[in-house]
Amino acid sequence: MIPLPTMQWMDGNLRLLDQRKLPSEEIYIDCRDIDSLAEAIRTLAVRGAPAIGIAAAFGAVIAALTADPGEEFNEAFYAKIDILEGTRPTAVNLFHCLDIQRRIFRMNPGRDSAIEALLESARDMMRSDLQASRQMGCFGADLLEKDSVVLTHCNAGGLATAGLGTALAVIYEAWDRGVLEKVYADETRPLLQGARLTAWELSRAGIPVDVLPDSAAASLLQKGQIDAVIVSSDRIAANGDAANKIGTYPLALAAKEHGIPFYVVAPLSTFDVSTSSGNEIEIEQRGRNELASLGERKLLPEAAGVWNPAFDVTPAKLITAIICEKGVLFTPDTDSIQSIFGRITDSR
Amino acid sequence: MIPLPTMQWMDGNLRLLDQRKLPSEEIYIDCRDIDSLAEAIRTLAVRGAPAIGIAAAFGAVIAALTADPGEEFNEAFYAKIDILEGTRPTAVNLFHCLDIQRRIFRMNPGRDSAIEALLESARDMMRSDLQASRQMGCFGADLLEKDSVVLTHCNAGGLATAGLGTALAVIYEAWDRGVLEKVYADETRPLLQGARLTAWELSRAGIPVDVLPDSAAASLLQKGQIDAVIVSSDRIAANGDAANKIGTYPLALAAKEHGIPFYVVAPLSTFDVSTSSGNEIEIEQRGRNELASLGERKLLPEAAGVWNPAFDVTPAKLITAIICEKGVLFTPDTDSIQSIFGRITDSR
Repeated sequence: MIPLPTMQWMDGNLRLLDQRKLPSEEIYIDCRDIDSLAEAIRTLAVRGAPAIGIAAAFGAVIAALTADPGEEFNEAFYAKIDILEGTRPTAVNLFHCLDIQRRIFRMNPGRDSAIEALLESARDMMRSDLQASRQMGCFGADLLEKDSVVLTHCNAGGLATAGLGTALAVIYEAWDRGVLEKVYADETRPLLQGARLTAWELSRAGIPVDVLPDSAAASLLQKGQIDAVIVSSDRIAANGDAANKIGTYPLALAAKEHGIPFYVVAPLSTFDVSTSSGNEIEIEQRGRNELASLGERKLLPEAAGVWNPAFDVTPAKLITAIICEKGVLFTPDTDSIQSIFGRITDSR
Repeated sequence: MIPLPTMQWMDGNLRLLDQRKLPSEEIYIDCRDIDSLAEAIRTLAVRGAPAIGIAAAFGAVIAALTADPGEEFNEAFYAKIDILEGTRPTAVNLFHCLDIQRRIFRMNPGRDSAIEALLESARDMMRSDLQASRQMGCFGADLLEKDSVVLTHCNAGGLATAGLGTALAVIYEAWDRGVLEKVYADETRPLLQGARLTAWELSRAGIPVDVLPDSAAASLLQKGQIDAVIVSSDRIAANGDAANKIGTYPLALAAKEHGIPFYVVAPLSTFDVSTSSGNEIEIEQRGRNELASLGERKLLPEAAGVWNPAFDVTPAKLITAIICEKGVLFTPDTDSIQSIFGRITDSR
């Protein structure tokens, strides 16, 4: 049930499905240097917290391949990593994956050995991501009753990861089990990932999907037409507050008002226990042009400003459960999140 | 502080500012027959509950002017009125204004006398609308403290009425009094009236305005950056439930969550005391094309459906006050609404 591959490593080249062009065109772009990859991340050709992290991990291979192999090889490598790290400020996976690659680089001195180790590490991340998706899909689908109608926001599908996605992994698994009736997808302004990407992914998988304006979701919940809201997250703080695509927080408020479960599906790599609460999460502000025009058409008068945050923070108290690859955290809080990380450490 | 005139009667021709083209182009369209006016209402060249009502009232003049003056003049007139009445189902002003014009028509038999009386009646509505806007503006501005930052949704400005608007009448008055710092305007998907119309109106009036995606409003309220949410309504039920542009209900939920006042500004013509609660208000569903493409660009895969309601219903319990031309109804309910209508009857 994997749609088109989001990314493929092809011998020195990271080939990315250009998500800016979907669903009109299915085109790939090739990134052989750091600048083109950084640009691809910054302009959302590749997007979604796990996918950004893995793309950056392959970016570390490109950094090693393209750094001048002279005396200043290490400095050149780290400078390229810094460029990647500066592309998007909110998704913690980017920093997490680059930290791992920096460590791998330190542990494997010498250009050839570094390249080999970095590549193996990036491939590992990709395999783990797919495996985590499958596990989250199973844990999440266990929570859905027969004939469930699910609402989702943005794209937390295969396109946002290396394969199956987070929120959509649950939807794919529920569909395979025959317990899913249909999906409503918020269109997700301003970049319309729900309309362009989620509806495209689900349609390709043969799953019925209706797209709605983000602001219509509260009415749909009010009408009792939704059995569960399922979204992903770009960063989960130590207390369970979850940053996700702008528009997630009002969904959580409406779900609470109407007694509908609100599930956040995210791998452990999305947890940032060094951030104690959502208040500390930096929220990326995006440019004016995303709101000011549609193609050639001008939407805003010159004198109008914009307020265009890419993410919002949903307080843990509004989250029914966080679903990760290790299980389901009901009523997430600092203790339950610490304990799931404790459990992992114990079992190692 | 009136921007461009929304509509002008020009001797048998209703000239409408084409709101579909704003802010790129400021063009007028001329409606000399019922079909072109019905099309203008249906496709939102003219929009906003009061403006639709007044346009339809002038439409009744056009109906009388264009109906065959033979034996079946009355039938032809009523048939044309029925066409106008079928254009939009939610805004009660449309039905209200056409009911008045039907009564005027019955009371003034004969083509010439009917035309004259219908025109006088439509002009009266236009004058009353402007007068009501001024009164609502004053009552609403009384509720704002110095340096207020206000959030609004859709366009409830001069463009939505015959002149000053409802929610924006309050904003214009507050600006004139020097108590308004700035306005945030939701862009209001799918037709972007907030971006295209509200930001345009406010910019022309020199009022600072920032536009945001609808789904970002909850974050703005969460951050404590807003002192009051001010919106309009297309129909207010007898119990105070208010239908307004899709996206109003989630705003009201977020305002409640963060203890920010939520004001609905609407003239008495918007109240529909024959509708006991919001559950009974018919919600217009709009077409797929509003979500499926942007100009030439396809946004949705063929297989995806849409759910595209034009309005939602905010329960009275979430409304801090309804501001009408007769005063301010705090915690609106069936009793307070009955009493304001009682007061009007008493004072006549």
